[in-house]
Amino acid sequence: LLVQASSSSPPSTSASAPRMKLSYRELQQLNGVRRYDLDRSCCFGTLLLDEERGRLFVGARNFLLSLNLENISKQEHKIYWPAPVEWREECNWAGKDINAGCSCGGLWGSAVPLSQRESHSVRLANKGTAPRRLGEPAICQRPSLFSSRNEHNYTNETDCVNYVKVLHHFNRTHLYACGTGAFHPACIHVEVGQRMEDHVFRIDQSKVEDGKGRSPYDPRHTAASVLIEDELYAGVATDLMGRDFTIFRSLGRKPSIRTEQHDSRWLNEPKFVGASWVPESENEDDDKIFFFFRETAVEAQGFGKVTYARIGQLCRNDMGGQRSLVNKWATFLKTRLVCSVPGSDGSETHFDELRDVFLLQTRDRKNPLFYTIFTTSSSVFRGSAVCVYTMSDIRRAFLGPFAHKEGPNYQWVPYQGKVPYPRPGMCPSRTYGSFESTKGFPDSVIQFARHHPLMFNPVTPLGGRPVFLSTSPEHSFTQITVDRVNAADGQYDVMFIGTDVGAVLKVISVPNKKSNTALLLEELQVFKDSSSIINMQISSKRQQLYVSSDTGVVQLPLHRCSVYGKACAECCLA
Amino acid sequence: LLVQASSSSPPSTSASAPRMKLSYRELQQLNGVRRYDLDRSCCFGTLLLDEERGRLFVGARNFLLSLNLENISKQEHKIYWPAPVEWREECNWAGKDINAGCSCGGLWGSAVPLSQRESHSVRLANKGTAPRRLGEPAICQRPSLFSSRNEHNYTNETDCVNYVKVLHHFNRTHLYACGTGAFHPACIHVEVGQRMEDHVFRIDQSKVEDGKGRSPYDPRHTAASVLIEDELYAGVATDLMGRDFTIFRSLGRKPSIRTEQHDSRWLNEPKFVGASWVPESENEDDDKIFFFFRETAVEAQGFGKVTYARIGQLCRNDMGGQRSLVNKWATFLKTRLVCSVPGSDGSETHFDELRDVFLLQTRDRKNPLFYTIFTTSSSVFRGSAVCVYTMSDIRRAFLGPFAHKEGPNYQWVPYQGKVPYPRPGMCPSRTYGSFESTKGFPDSVIQFARHHPLMFNPVTPLGGRPVFLSTSPEHSFTQITVDRVNAADGQYDVMFIGTDVGAVLKVISVPNKKSNTALLLEELQVFKDSSSIINMQISSKRQQLYVSSDTGVVQLPLHRCSVYGKACAECCLA
Repeated sequence: LLVQASSSSPPSTSASAPRMKLSYRELQQLNGVRRYDLDRSCCFGTLLLDEERGRLFVGARNFLLSLNLENISKQEHKIYWPAPVEWREECNWAGKDINAGCSCGGLWGSAVPLSQRESHSVRLANKGTAPRRLGEPAICQRPSLFSSRNEHNYTNETDCVNYVKVLHHFNRTHLYACGTGAFHPACIHVEVGQRMEDHVFRIDQSKVEDGKGRSPYDPRHTAASVLIEDELYAGVATDLMGRDFTIFRSLGRKPSIRTEQHDSRWLNEPKFVGASWVPESENEDDDKIFFFFRETAVEAQGFGKVTYARIGQLCRNDMGGQRSLVNKWATFLKTRLVCSVPGSDGSETHFDELRDVFLLQTRDRKNPLFYTIFTTSSSVFRGSAVCVYTMSDIRRAFLGPFAHKEGPNYQWVPYQGKVPYPRPGMCPSRTYGSFESTKGFPDSVIQFARHHPLMFNPVTPLGGRPVFLSTSPEHSFTQITVDRVNAADGQYDVMFIGTDVGAVLKVISVPNKKSNTALLLEELQVFKDSSSIINMQISSKRQQLYVSSDTGVVQLPLHRCSVYGKACAECCLA
Repeated sequence: LLVQASSSSPPSTSASAPRMKLSYRELQQLNGVRRYDLDRSCCFGTLLLDEERGRLFVGARNFLLSLNLENISKQEHKIYWPAPVEWREECNWAGKDINAGCSCGGLWGSAVPLSQRESHSVRLANKGTAPRRLGEPAICQRPSLFSSRNEHNYTNETDCVNYVKVLHHFNRTHLYACGTGAFHPACIHVEVGQRMEDHVFRIDQSKVEDGKGRSPYDPRHTAASVLIEDELYAGVATDLMGRDFTIFRSLGRKPSIRTEQHDSRWLNEPKFVGASWVPESENEDDDKIFFFFRETAVEAQGFGKVTYARIGQLCRNDMGGQRSLVNKWATFLKTRLVCSVPGSDGSETHFDELRDVFLLQTRDRKNPLFYTIFTTSSSVFRGSAVCVYTMSDIRRAFLGPFAHKEGPNYQWVPYQGKVPYPRPGMCPSRTYGSFESTKGFPDSVIQFARHHPLMFNPVTPLGGRPVFLSTSPEHSFTQITVDRVNAADGQYDVMFIGTDVGAVLKVISVPNKKSNTALLLEELQVFKDSSSIINMQISSKRQQLYVSSDTGVVQLPLHRCSVYGKACAECCLA
């Protein structure tokens, strides 16, 4: 690699001028970008890379797509997957009339029959509608879900259609997909064949399922989910109004488990951005699932509405409690992810709005790196940062003190008392103890876990500060994906950062003795219409980047060596 | 006035392009700026306007100056006021050798004899050196005061000289001035004569006093002080190391009173920026003194080192407590000054670093307005804001609930119990009660006051947000002064804002129906060398602005009507 870190650069490099900036036209002239779009659709928010079959699966509005990884413009297969007309009509009716007083029909009640096409029932721990609490307005009196938000660009389109939000490999022949279904989430199995040559791409109509607890209702919400073997772990709102957020396990043979309801210490208006499965030892029983989200900080109550970024953990073999926390996580813990720039006077500039997480595998599957995107919460200052977290720092925080609040007028402090055994957060396994299941945990452990989901110590980023940041008011970072490159002079992490104005930043992180220095190499305008980048996938094998927005999907090579001249081009790929 | 507020402007106008921007050269060509500087001096930080005598008194390094208000370049009188050579030598010795181990001599101990020239002893409540607490290093082991800071531009100059920090009218014939005296503060009386024609300007050598508790030791510190009749109220560090900050009354007939020591609830590493005397009724016994400062927030402990802006109040007739709080303020209260921009999602962008305060008199002397300058605490985002506070909002905060913290692990909450009578913060007067002196207050009142100096509710700015703000990384605001103008179509406040790059911004605040709109009219480069503006005084009578920096003092008219063309010029002055 030709890149040299100038020793005078500060550790946190602001996004100053890139070494190379290419407009959309310049990128096209280099044959550097391939584009896919679909007239009748939009919102290509869900991408699933399939290296084996050479396909990029895409979830969009009313469509599932199978594109060719070599050239996404060619050889497209598509499935039209709309919401049934009766759901769309109900949704439209509710969206229009929901403000008009208490004339609500059956749609939002618990008596709505599921579509006849559903063959599986969803095993949500709290099935049906949660009892309405005192002071909570009747659902039909709530202001319209649809009219009050302006974030969405597609004002001429309705929310009352099916937006694909979840797309995973299910088994050797099928994908699993979920969509909003016009505020009536549904999931399907999609047959994709066994081999590259099969070119199969069709819905298995015998297996349409209720998507509650798997896909959000609202197209503006995201679901963070991970599918392991046949278990789906999803962080999602499980109700129409988007109030009851949960981390929910469904499908598979293990019982359906969710987070405690109506407890702001567990989840407090969370926005989920990522989920990952990380083994902790050679024993599968120690496997953990990590959720990344941002939420309103209970710790900062009294300081206005403050958002913190969080990492939450739970054990894959969690079966819930026996007498308490029945069908709830007995191993759920969370803590703050700090991404901040320390000032010389002890003040910190915090980036708290977690936007994206990328798990970078290392040689040791138990110790990946997490590359994350944060933005500021401020309405005055616009800033974005990349922070990197190690598993050892994450594990240390979860092994640290529990956050404890004695009563309403007390502060959050590190819990000083005796923590029951087995320590909450430990998975039942032979590695660390003799418990076979969380159902065998003593009541004291379950009670402690119930009241102490929050850790006191946050996770701080590698190097104690962002590896890269931008204070430009022109853009915010939205997405990140990372390519680890082995060069002659060592290992580099090449970050591809998506922005809200349709540009991709290529940034190289150069390890220094003390900390990392990041260098902005390229700024590439991959979307002509400057639409916000909402997903990115990388194929290190094919050296290609796949980027999506509301208006389309583009493909570009990771490197554009030719533009640097011949001599340099050879180095570039070395 | 010609200025029209465009109705589409947001209430908080960012400092976008000014209507007129003048470089230093352009300003000179307009005969728009007069300059004074003094070869052997610098740091013209202290300005005192004397409309009656037509003089601008200036405190600088080693000099006191008397300039002509009509033209500061002409008719200068000056007094050379250095620190005595023995103090300078002691200071130099300590500054150089203070790191070299515990070889400290007598200078920093309590046995240092005051200069023979001192005739008055200072009645500091805690006279002498405070007892050294366990764990506090011996003074001589502390790192040098002088070598570790880089803020100061005058590296070729020493701190071991006399910087004038305090300058007030004392009586009809004298000023009162204090200086750092080479880390050995001293105060003097300066004879200025009774009339304009007298041209008297000399030190009264019979009245040189110790300046402890009146002037800071460190030239980089500021003292906020106000002199009323013959009482000096100063917010200042009273020790060499700059650790023991106090609000201190001295001179005059009333007893010397200070704030409680070693109690972070009272003062916590404060930086004082202003002091004002405001009557509360027709009865002089209700008069209050307000101090403006920023400090480390005790309320935000556990959230890193957070700075809050504060307003503190005390009664002019406070005599201290009888059994407790002896020679300490019995009426001291403080609360937070909030200057923030609300975001749409409930998050607030706070400006917490209070930099300057200007008291704008209105027709009612009991109800002035406070125009204040704030900057951000962040090392990443640079922003400045002007917030305006009314006396009624300030009084409401001090009449609100007291902040209360039950114990170490408790939160700060509004005190719910019974507040003793007379309510702490009320002055002993016939207006509200029958107490003649704070010495007659019940012990319960004194005890409550001692433990509850902090109010729970902050003071929020007029309109709930800044009237003007800048997010430019090019400059920060440092100083403000305001001219209230009566125009044909109403009353306008014209703000003159000094920046850290030697420019003055002229901003007009246009009252709207809902809130104020501010308009950046002019940006004037008044210092060629871009030195930071450290003081500003306005003469509404003469329509002149006096601006000082480390390198000089400049004078400019408030308006430059001619540059707008003839027709407009007539409007401009209408």
